[in-house]
Amino acid sequence: MTTVALADWVSNLTYSNLPQPVIDAAVRSFQNGLGCVIGGSNNTATRRALTAVLPLSDTKLCTLLGQSTSHIDLQSAALINGIASHVDDYDDTHLATVIHPAGVIIVSLFAFVEYMCRNSQYKQAISGQAFITALVAGIETSLRVGLAVSPNHYDAGWHITGTVSSMGVAAAISNLLRLDSAVVDNALGIAATQVTGIRVHFGTDTKSFHVGRAAQNGIMAVLLAESGFTAAPDALEGRRGWVEVVGNGANTLSDQIRAMQVQVMANTSQTSERPIWEIENNTFKPFPCGIVIHPTIDGSIQLHKELNFSTSNSTTEIERVDLQVNPLVLDLTGIKTPKDGLEAKFSVYHGCAIGLIFGSAKPAQYESSVVNQEDVAMLRSKVVAVVDKQIRSDEAIVKLTMKDGSTFTKHVEHAIGSLDNPMTNAELVEKFVNQAEPILGKTAATQLNEIAWKVADLEDIRDIIRAAE
Amino acid sequence: MTTVALADWVSNLTYSNLPQPVIDAAVRSFQNGLGCVIGGSNNTATRRALTAVLPLSDTKLCTLLGQSTSHIDLQSAALINGIASHVDDYDDTHLATVIHPAGVIIVSLFAFVEYMCRNSQYKQAISGQAFITALVAGIETSLRVGLAVSPNHYDAGWHITGTVSSMGVAAAISNLLRLDSAVVDNALGIAATQVTGIRVHFGTDTKSFHVGRAAQNGIMAVLLAESGFTAAPDALEGRRGWVEVVGNGANTLSDQIRAMQVQVMANTSQTSERPIWEIENNTFKPFPCGIVIHPTIDGSIQLHKELNFSTSNSTTEIERVDLQVNPLVLDLTGIKTPKDGLEAKFSVYHGCAIGLIFGSAKPAQYESSVVNQEDVAMLRSKVVAVVDKQIRSDEAIVKLTMKDGSTFTKHVEHAIGSLDNPMTNAELVEKFVNQAEPILGKTAATQLNEIAWKVADLEDIRDIIRAAE
Repeated sequence: MTTVALADWVSNLTYSNLPQPVIDAAVRSFQNGLGCVIGGSNNTATRRALTAVLPLSDTKLCTLLGQSTSHIDLQSAALINGIASHVDDYDDTHLATVIHPAGVIIVSLFAFVEYMCRNSQYKQAISGQAFITALVAGIETSLRVGLAVSPNHYDAGWHITGTVSSMGVAAAISNLLRLDSAVVDNALGIAATQVTGIRVHFGTDTKSFHVGRAAQNGIMAVLLAESGFTAAPDALEGRRGWVEVVGNGANTLSDQIRAMQVQVMANTSQTSERPIWEIENNTFKPFPCGIVIHPTIDGSIQLHKELNFSTSNSTTEIERVDLQVNPLVLDLTGIKTPKDGLEAKFSVYHGCAIGLIFGSAKPAQYESSVVNQEDVAMLRSKVVAVVDKQIRSDEAIVKLTMKDGSTFTKHVEHAIGSLDNPMTNAELVEKFVNQAEPILGKTAATQLNEIAWKVADLEDIRDIIRAAE
Repeated sequence: MTTVALADWVSNLTYSNLPQPVIDAAVRSFQNGLGCVIGGSNNTATRRALTAVLPLSDTKLCTLLGQSTSHIDLQSAALINGIASHVDDYDDTHLATVIHPAGVIIVSLFAFVEYMCRNSQYKQAISGQAFITALVAGIETSLRVGLAVSPNHYDAGWHITGTVSSMGVAAAISNLLRLDSAVVDNALGIAATQVTGIRVHFGTDTKSFHVGRAAQNGIMAVLLAESGFTAAPDALEGRRGWVEVVGNGANTLSDQIRAMQVQVMANTSQTSERPIWEIENNTFKPFPCGIVIHPTIDGSIQLHKELNFSTSNSTTEIERVDLQVNPLVLDLTGIKTPKDGLEAKFSVYHGCAIGLIFGSAKPAQYESSVVNQEDVAMLRSKVVAVVDKQIRSDEAIVKLTMKDGSTFTKHVEHAIGSLDNPMTNAELVEKFVNQAEPILGKTAATQLNEIAWKVADLEDIRDIIRAAE
């Protein structure tokens, strides 16, 4: 009974179970995720969704991070903040599954913590330690369930962040509420049955809707389960259960759950070598676009700097650019002539061009105005990408041929942001402030970043929610 | 571009496009569906779900049919009424797809009509004709999309009523609002990506949650699309689109959409022979349980009457009961010793026993107290079911062997409620009043039934919603 075992794990996980590196990883995931929610709060898709749900309820209980409309009902807050967390494609990535795990859990916990205040059945303040524990419970659940069906599930066309995060959110809130294992089991089952996200929508607003909806799915699952609503106890592994229906043949669920149990036991016994928790394999994006483009962008930026393109040299002197890339690159991000910022996130050609021209690939370089700039379009058209099965997903070779016949090649072995070359905390601070400053102003953005790193020390997690309004 | 064509169809369907038999079928589907919502309003699962969502919002705008808590917010009304529509397994069935199409569309339209009143952008009154047109748009969409992936989709483990009804609801509300085709296209795409319902949950509260959630999914899709939220224009037929991801190899979508277009054109031209609309293939359940059990129940009730079991004869004299049934029967409803009313709905053995003992299979015979009655349990244990591939899904053979060695056999060729032996309007009236009377009282139940048959004549559909409070 693997769903039952997972529910037990979720129900029993406490802060004392977490090794320090896991806590550190959770804080980094939190700081990065929070920055992404703020950064995406004014995106077109986020604003459209807010317009849609604003008339639904008069209840103004939960904070819309970074929005001028500051409060809304529980489910709408989860949706809008969830969309914001993902809409810039700037969030975290668990490379083995392509899951973006943290944002959706953070926004769901935030909304639920505020919701709890209205109900006397819940306690009134949630500590930073309780919050971090719930965050880890949620992220580990998403990643382990995702691993159980990888890579088949994503390959079959499921947007795995949407599908597994319903369960991750249910696990996080269940842990926060210290629900009984049997109730958690029902919550996981109700979450699992809401399979949200097919990949046909990549490149449209609906891609980030999957993340917002997953937050709502998980919250709904817990509310129902808490009220005694029943579900199949073996919802994941059972006949016609989640793994059978959407696993597309992959199924390592039992192994994954066992690994979760071992993680906790190893920390308690402190004898054997400590196994890595999946949250420690979470990575953070230096660039707001599909992660498979990152090695190309990294190489392009390095060439920009080394060749002084902005000053002594001009990118108009480039005759052609040849890329050798991992096969996934053209499968996922092969749009040659993106028509707006959203499509540009799925264009390795755009990533290469902005890296060479601007030496930077931040949200500013994914504005539609930049995407349609003449020099950017011209350089994009000169880029030729060739797939090479020998190239790893964090690797790329960028070769420039100039009009004078000279060539320059950059071989990126491990792109910045990859597991072998992770973003430093200092780089995460810069990324956070860069995202939050246009929304909150410099002072508030800087202050919020500082609180974010201290999240585990807070006595009341609402302190940080208030600082992010 | 089949999704685009479907969106066009939904956007353009008017009352004048509907042949009279389609209107008649819609009214029957409406009357039966409304009765089921009222009948299921006090079910345990419905009450649990209401407990869960009541604290979510202070907005009391939309009617909870048959509930003492009379009003709630839009999305919660859709959820609760949607659960109620399906929770007794007493709703309609489109036999070729096993979709229960009407209830979820009815409750979504009801909730949305009331929601519209608060927004000046919408018109204030929806006529019965506009309502029926929207209902047909929604039901045809659900059934045609369902046919496109049948039987593979259901066989793979999807609860098809949940998965397709997100789109059916989106179509119904889009038609009601007379949305532009391009907006409907986005709404269908957003609806499609919320794939709700895996069959592992059959026999638990979560089965009917699928229906309530589908209502919410469809409403959310329309609200987002109306606000400019974008989705893949080819969400159904595109690469990694709905059909590819969940069709499990089946794909007659183009044919289905073409058939929808032909339906409308044939009515306009009035030349060729009129093709049957799928709503005309909708059937209504005489018994509140899985439809594959119905032939067995029908035969058992007939034997009860013919052998005068309640008076001159006793079912305790039965030595054994032999059933010959369609292969689906044991696959879907093979629970030998159900522990409560919910499980009994998936027990051909229980259906047979109550038919023989009570000569009736109504909600009363699916109360847990009856399920656990000693004589019922004893007779269930004497039933032996054997699968026979030659037996159609609406057929069964029930053979009694008495303790004195005598035998009685009943061969049901077409069960009551099947396409070849449909429930009459008079039988639907009896079913409606039987369901509504315990909730609304005799007078109100009878009045509501009368209004239901006249739904197409109403000037303001809210008249019927008020009568169903």
